[in-house]
Amino acid sequence: MADYELLMIPGPTNLPEEVREALGRPQISHRVGRFKTLVGEVTKGLQSLFMTSQPVLTLTASSTGAMEAAIVNLLSPGDPVICVDTGKFGDRLGQIAAIYGARVHTLRVERGQAVSEAELGEACAMIRPKAVLMVQNETSTGVCQDVAALAEICRTYNALSVVDAVSALGGIPLRMDAWGLDAVIAGSQKALMLPPGLGFVAFSERAWEAARTSTMPKFYFDLTKARSSLEKGGETPYTPNTSLFVALQVVLDMIAEEGLEQRWEQHHRLALGCRAAMEALGLTLFAAPEVRSDTITSVVSPVDSQELTRVVREQHNIIIAGGQDELRGKIFRIGHMGICELGHLVMTVAAVADALDELGYACDSAAAVWAAESAY
Amino acid sequence: MADYELLMIPGPTNLPEEVREALGRPQISHRVGRFKTLVGEVTKGLQSLFMTSQPVLTLTASSTGAMEAAIVNLLSPGDPVICVDTGKFGDRLGQIAAIYGARVHTLRVERGQAVSEAELGEACAMIRPKAVLMVQNETSTGVCQDVAALAEICRTYNALSVVDAVSALGGIPLRMDAWGLDAVIAGSQKALMLPPGLGFVAFSERAWEAARTSTMPKFYFDLTKARSSLEKGGETPYTPNTSLFVALQVVLDMIAEEGLEQRWEQHHRLALGCRAAMEALGLTLFAAPEVRSDTITSVVSPVDSQELTRVVREQHNIIIAGGQDELRGKIFRIGHMGICELGHLVMTVAAVADALDELGYACDSAAAVWAAESAY
Repeated sequence: MADYELLMIPGPTNLPEEVREALGRPQISHRVGRFKTLVGEVTKGLQSLFMTSQPVLTLTASSTGAMEAAIVNLLSPGDPVICVDTGKFGDRLGQIAAIYGARVHTLRVERGQAVSEAELGEACAMIRPKAVLMVQNETSTGVCQDVAALAEICRTYNALSVVDAVSALGGIPLRMDAWGLDAVIAGSQKALMLPPGLGFVAFSERAWEAARTSTMPKFYFDLTKARSSLEKGGETPYTPNTSLFVALQVVLDMIAEEGLEQRWEQHHRLALGCRAAMEALGLTLFAAPEVRSDTITSVVSPVDSQELTRVVREQHNIIIAGGQDELRGKIFRIGHMGICELGHLVMTVAAVADALDELGYACDSAAAVWAAESAY
Repeated sequence: MADYELLMIPGPTNLPEEVREALGRPQISHRVGRFKTLVGEVTKGLQSLFMTSQPVLTLTASSTGAMEAAIVNLLSPGDPVICVDTGKFGDRLGQIAAIYGARVHTLRVERGQAVSEAELGEACAMIRPKAVLMVQNETSTGVCQDVAALAEICRTYNALSVVDAVSALGGIPLRMDAWGLDAVIAGSQKALMLPPGLGFVAFSERAWEAARTSTMPKFYFDLTKARSSLEKGGETPYTPNTSLFVALQVVLDMIAEEGLEQRWEQHHRLALGCRAAMEALGLTLFAAPEVRSDTITSVVSPVDSQELTRVVREQHNIIIAGGQDELRGKIFRIGHMGICELGHLVMTVAAVADALDELGYACDSAAAVWAAESAY
């Protein structure tokens, strides 16, 4: 097997050369000035990405750890919450809250759709939740929700908006302060072009207020402690993943240099290209037209999608994703985030067409490639 | 400032070239066969290190996360536990248990000492704890406890022995199964020569039994879920830090090649050298003679130890550690773990002597270096 795989999944993504170099640097101590300065700089860079004036806390954990951190720092057992269940990750937010004792009301959304504002408003009116848990970019279905509009509904009902932006941040517009989001959760291994291992959380003023009275138990994920360590001058309460912090500084500089809006634009163009290519293959996009993600494209598979991903991997050394849970076998998903370029997309489109053909679904690879290039 | 610092702290440690190369490799997907095979191999390697036939679970978190995982998977709110408070890390185990609702009885041990078997036996007889939380190698004081003997006392009272071996594993003998330890906790950034970011936990059969009825809430740190993912064939419930897994495989191979007993021996010789050097400087070792650690040497500082560490860092580019909490300013600590060699120790001894001299404590650097080399 070739040593290098092209990762076209919704994270982890391919790494820029600069990141790989940074990861391989000699280790530095996390308790001396140099690292503390780095933590301060990285936090500023993350604030620009989140578009917030609030501190962004970096946790040594995957994104699920950051999801847990947001929930256990805001809520208390018995609190009513609404979980907007758009798929695997929406559902996961609700699972975490329930395990820690919240009274979770699940608003199940048809797969491939976003929740409607009317539905959410109605549920809020009935339940009067302390918080609404939702995903901006539901990785399992390729749906991107209008969290600005949803957060406004939350505010009307005095509920905290808790937004998982894990597969959105850096690839899809997110304006935490301007949109009035109360908690934003992200991770290192998606559009941020890093390996997995860091999670990020930021809270609004209102969320920090709620954190003061939250009684769900927390130690490793205690964000009040993390914030006070950060404000003491670039510390973390527990030993951080120093290597990933160093690499994070590198990507934040890269993004700042290119410009965040340019990054969003690049992801949008890749999404346009990917959607056009899939439609040129005669396939149906899984996500509803007005809510399609710019970082991941989900497609109804005309063959068993587990087979499709296997053939694409074995014959082309390209990794695409199948469906998860109830969508297993039924859809496939192409991630186009991070350092992904048109060339990667074209290779992937051609490989998918080829594999579909092999699995008995005749289709026109050249037309799909042409469609991708034209729409990009 | 020079780009390279010599890390002589109790983690993170200097990285072998092989690890730095592994960290910089292209990213791989965590859901395909290649990574799953790696997880299986890494787990086997960790079992050899822990000297256990039980599965060793690898968490994407620092060691404190692994401490939390062990506790919340074994205990239920209201459970009586004894916390053997030997220093910062013993105390931390008790804090975690208390936050999650255990009834924590703290057995405070004089700093620089280990708990005596008689004391622990007496406490167990009185409290009849569900578990005893203890640290094998208390990083904050440089004390190494005889956890084999302590675990035997736990067994007598039908209590689970929960052992933080974070700064011991790979550097100091640890035989989980032979010693009958019920939970062993470790991390990547100590004698394992990796950056921080992975935590490890293994449970005995008895501990897994207890996990079945544990009701403390857990999601990210749910070890039953982690075990079932592992047994499904090398999966992790949430996205793992793939880069660190790849590097972990490299160090496990390195340790297997050198031999674990040789690694222990190397750490022991470095400790002998370090202790002899400090005594040759006329200094008093902080840890009691019979319980001194082989991975970290703690020394009573004749000057403000914060000043000492600063001078050593600024003038020699070597990082040693001061004291923590109530020991701040009073002791300093030299870590000698991982890829540390006699040459590193000698440089450090000379730098410490030089800095002490500058801070007004006259001492003989050459004699100290000679002592280190002789005792090694």
